[in-house]
Amino acid sequence: MIGVVGSGGDVTACLESLEATPGVEKAVRISAPYKFVSKEFRKERTVIKVGKAEIGGDEFITMAGPCSVESEKQIMETAEAVAAAGATILRGGAFKPRTSPYDFQGMAGDGLKLLAKAREATGLAVITEVMSDQDVSLVAEYADIMQVGARNMQNFALLKVLGRCGRPVMLKRGLSATIKELLMSAEYIVAHGNPQVMLCERGIRTFETATRNTCDISAVPVLNELTHLPVIIDPSHAVGKRSLVPAIAKAAVAVGADGMIVEVHPCPEKAVSDGAQSLTIEGFREMMQMLQGYQKLWKLERQSELAVA
Amino acid sequence: MIGVVGSGGDVTACLESLEATPGVEKAVRISAPYKFVSKEFRKERTVIKVGKAEIGGDEFITMAGPCSVESEKQIMETAEAVAAAGATILRGGAFKPRTSPYDFQGMAGDGLKLLAKAREATGLAVITEVMSDQDVSLVAEYADIMQVGARNMQNFALLKVLGRCGRPVMLKRGLSATIKELLMSAEYIVAHGNPQVMLCERGIRTFETATRNTCDISAVPVLNELTHLPVIIDPSHAVGKRSLVPAIAKAAVAVGADGMIVEVHPCPEKAVSDGAQSLTIEGFREMMQMLQGYQKLWKLERQSELAVA
Amino acid sequence: MIGVVGSGGDVTACLESLEATPGVEKAVRISAPYKFVSKEFRKERTVIKVGKAEIGGDEFITMAGPCSVESEKQIMETAEAVAAAGATILRGGAFKPRTSPYDFQGMAGDGLKLLAKAREATGLAVITEVMSDQDVSLVAEYADIMQVGARNMQNFALLKVLGRCGRPVMLKRGLSATIKELLMSAEYIVAHGNPQVMLCERGIRTFETATRNTCDISAVPVLNELTHLPVIIDPSHAVGKRSLVPAIAKAAVAVGADGMIVEVHPCPEKAVSDGAQSLTIEGFREMMQMLQGYQKLWKLERQSELAVA
Amino acid sequence: MIGVVGSGGDVTACLESLEATPGVEKAVRISAPYKFVSKEFRKERTVIKVGKAEIGGDEFITMAGPCSVESEKQIMETAEAVAAAGATILRGGAFKPRTSPYDFQGMAGDGLKLLAKAREATGLAVITEVMSDQDVSLVAEYADIMQVGARNMQNFALLKVLGRCGRPVMLKRGLSATIKELLMSAEYIVAHGNPQVMLCERGIRTFETATRNTCDISAVPVLNELTHLPVIIDPSHAVGKRSLVPAIAKAAVAVGADGMIVEVHPCPEKAVSDGAQSLTIEGFREMMQMLQGYQKLWKLERQSELAVA
Repeated sequence: MIGVVGSGGDVTACLESLEATPGVEKAVRISAPYKFVSKEFRKERTVIKVGKAEIGGDEFITMAGPCSVESEKQIMETAEAVAAAGATILRGGAFKPRTSPYDFQGMAGDGLKLLAKAREATGLAVITEVMSDQDVSLVAEYADIMQVGARNMQNFALLKVLGRCGRPVMLKRGLSATIKELLMSAEYIVAHGNPQVMLCERGIRTFETATRNTCDISAVPVLNELTHLPVIIDPSHAVGKRSLVPAIAKAAVAVGADGMIVEVHPCPEKAVSDGAQSLTIEGFREMMQMLQGYQKLWKLERQSELAVA
Repeated sequence: MIGVVGSGGDVTACLESLEATPGVEKAVRISAPYKFVSKEFRKERTVIKVGKAEIGGDEFITMAGPCSVESEKQIMETAEAVAAAGATILRGGAFKPRTSPYDFQGMAGDGLKLLAKAREATGLAVITEVMSDQDVSLVAEYADIMQVGARNMQNFALLKVLGRCGRPVMLKRGLSATIKELLMSAEYIVAHGNPQVMLCERGIRTFETATRNTCDISAVPVLNELTHLPVIIDPSHAVGKRSLVPAIAKAAVAVGADGMIVEVHPCPEKAVSDGAQSLTIEGFREMMQMLQGYQKLWKLERQSELAVA
Repeated sequence: MIGVVGSGGDVTACLESLEATPGVEKAVRISAPYKFVSKEFRKERTVIKVGKAEIGGDEFITMAGPCSVESEKQIMETAEAVAAAGATILRGGAFKPRTSPYDFQGMAGDGLKLLAKAREATGLAVITEVMSDQDVSLVAEYADIMQVGARNMQNFALLKVLGRCGRPVMLKRGLSATIKELLMSAEYIVAHGNPQVMLCERGIRTFETATRNTCDISAVPVLNELTHLPVIIDPSHAVGKRSLVPAIAKAAVAVGADGMIVEVHPCPEKAVSDGAQSLTIEGFREMMQMLQGYQKLWKLERQSELAVA
Repeated sequence: MIGVVGSGGDVTACLESLEATPGVEKAVRISAPYKFVSKEFRKERTVIKVGKAEIGGDEFITMAGPCSVESEKQIMETAEAVAAAGATILRGGAFKPRTSPYDFQGMAGDGLKLLAKAREATGLAVITEVMSDQDVSLVAEYADIMQVGARNMQNFALLKVLGRCGRPVMLKRGLSATIKELLMSAEYIVAHGNPQVMLCERGIRTFETATRNTCDISAVPVLNELTHLPVIIDPSHAVGKRSLVPAIAKAAVAVGADGMIVEVHPCPEKAVSDGAQSLTIEGFREMMQMLQGYQKLWKLERQSELAVA
């Protein structure tokens, strides 16, 4: 498949002449401002394979782990626990975007090495954030999935470099980014060479202060109508409060997301960041058990969708 | 149970002297700005019985019907269809709040009579909106549940009168009302004499324009922590687009709402209002079938909660 | 001037036949969803006369007074002070919309009588809020301008009754109402018989918490392009903090509003409501002095606009 | 002045021992989460000198020019015109952050050279955007002020590098950044070594669609209470519509901003970006004339403030 970008001119004539070219089966006009990521360009869901997980496939995927990598003990203990409870991808930040310059900024390279060690020990794939175009090649050495944080969703310099990084990317929606803007940012990565992009709804900023952000749950079916890319929900950042996470996780499965990313910490009250929204290991285990029934329904629906297609 | 409102003074002494009063079992201080509606005041869920439905009980409740009552044929056909598909409450507007003075304002008294006729024919209970304190007694003659629309959530004159109307009230969250403000408005109704209040999350106003409103799904677990009142989700107004409604309905069940209110019309493209978000009768039937698995999980969770309590 | 409302049919033919009717000078099609309030319907600014003030005329108008009428002493003292400092209209709430049912709800009829007394003593016109359609005739007995609060902007039952109240109305923009919705609500009042409507920008609800609301200052030039109705700014509610009020008042004059409404209290720390945002009498006096230079520029610009027209 | 960052410990003892140190005049505790940028750290306004302009001084500063540098003819013509009309700083983008990867991305290095040429010809200082930490040294070669766009306000990797760039920085507020977050981002730059930071209010994202963004005019007095850094208003991006710009510019002067940044284009309808909000050269000239009266009042107020201090 080849995408041709541009505007103006006699499009119909152009499409006809393209279809007449040997080797071309069909030429399609894409009217959305995003091209490669649109359903018009590709009808089948994009499936992204990392480790044992197939994101966008026929299993609901769970990514779990601490906000920040803090120590070998912390990350190994968490990795083993979340793997045992059913997660297939380990999250953990080595480079941390912090509102204050005086807050913990992450373990950087050392954190990446600990994540790799946890991967070896558990078989979990690793997702971790990259904050600067200068760090892309370093992070790509260790990560299975490169995470772009909400604050960098429109860091176009970073997106361009991620188009050439050779790793799947999870792009988090900006705090006040529209769904269209999220797709345009994904288009940057794909247009620069990397089709392995998944999107993440992590809560948007509204007037409501009862939760840290407002989980825009409708973003999932909206995105499912507009794009073939997988959609992940982050209930932890969406609500910012531990006790609310399981209910949102259930909703994430029911609404048809491809997976979720959840913060888990062996001792949340001592976490250097996001302690209030991190599940304990025991809490994560209970939640995963409660989700089983919902995941079965999810799987039946996904299989019947694939059967139809 | 008696609530005493006020501030200042020696509260501890006061509580002690109250507890010493004959006939008083226990005196509790409520620190939330809302009193009667808070979990501190009452731990058990409030159950509201209308017709065959017990809202807040151990069944997920479905209210369904057209945005506006338009004709006898339309309301009778819809009522029979939604009852057959599993709804127990019929919705339909006789007084319509419309942004434009030139839009259809509802059938008023004639609409109320048609709703009552549909109730007789189907056994469905009836929920319908009341827009003015002057109409409360008229609407209360016909309705089983009085609906307060989002635009009237802080119409305090109306709330006060509803405190004395003798009917359950469903209070919709205002377009930019915080959860705390929603509870304060519910408190108005309860404090004026009517404890039968249910709350409705119908989408809040944000910057996102892909959906009509943004469904604040987290409002459900937040409210479940703060209040004993039942919580209803309105997926139709939340998203404003027919194709997105079933996904949000699934999320509503999964997240733990007590019920949902959905717009259904025999011929949405001819509806005088909200056609774009109304399900067809066939669409509603399919959705109700798809929800069965989720409702079973819901029931198991509710029963285990009640068993614990 | 007569407005004909409706849609469909051959509009051009219709306009031509209207223009051919004796006594008809010109027939104009209005494409905006609001008709009577649009610039297309009427190009010249609407001027509303109350007492000595001409709102929409060639003087910037100041309305000032306490949030709530609390006592004779309080309202008389404030009225005299604001009149002396240059205000021509006295504000003061007798019916108060309060988020909590346990907060002070206003002096009602007694408050209205005190406002009338202050008017007699000072020559100030009186603006006060009406919260229910049932109170309209009572309030209209005492008020020169009927105020509709932000929470009632889409209380359509109230708006309809205000169309027949025989008094000018100041319609405050709802907390999350778009400018178009504000105009549609004004259209309700005008379409029901009352052309004397002024609009009030009082801050909208956003994610920012440094101020009580966010003053949408651009609403003034936007409204000036769309409508002939006067536009008032309420800096007190917009910011919610005394020290910020004078800067916003200066901006209100500079941006071209027709006037402002400001909260002033002889002893803000003892005010029963909105104390934090009320100016002291001394603070109001200083602000009015500082505004003189800006008001001169305002007047020059308004006069040159009128000279051109 | 030296800032010591940290928390915990006996602060009073610590301050006392610091004050006892030879060469230390006074030690002050700063309670705000931002330190160096707070009023507590420094009471006098920060004045930033570039070319003939003193931002934060006793003249209201105007920065003007096209959204994008498009050609030598375009930038030279605009620079001469805005200089003649009273601007002292030329704006123009060489690196353009665009929502779509298919939109014009800027002339990059060639654009920077044209800006430098325009500076030589006119004596205007140059402000231009830098989008990536990798481009900082290149942009710093040509620019007098480094602009950080709204989408990069929390690109912390970029902010850190700008702390060492040796040039003043104008930091634009993110689309949904709180004022506190804006100050925290400024703190990043200052804490990494660069005290020459000015802040820019360019409109925030809200539900209102009548304007491109919502100009949070109150941000100016709020920032003036919290920080000593200069505050610039960008009326062009705030409203997104040419006809509304002059009214907001007047409000910007009146509310007490230190300056404004305005888009001007010799032929807006042919602009490659932001044409709808760019003033024509003639329109800019008229606006500057209209602002003279307001700027005189501004200067009087600033001088009386400095006299008091």
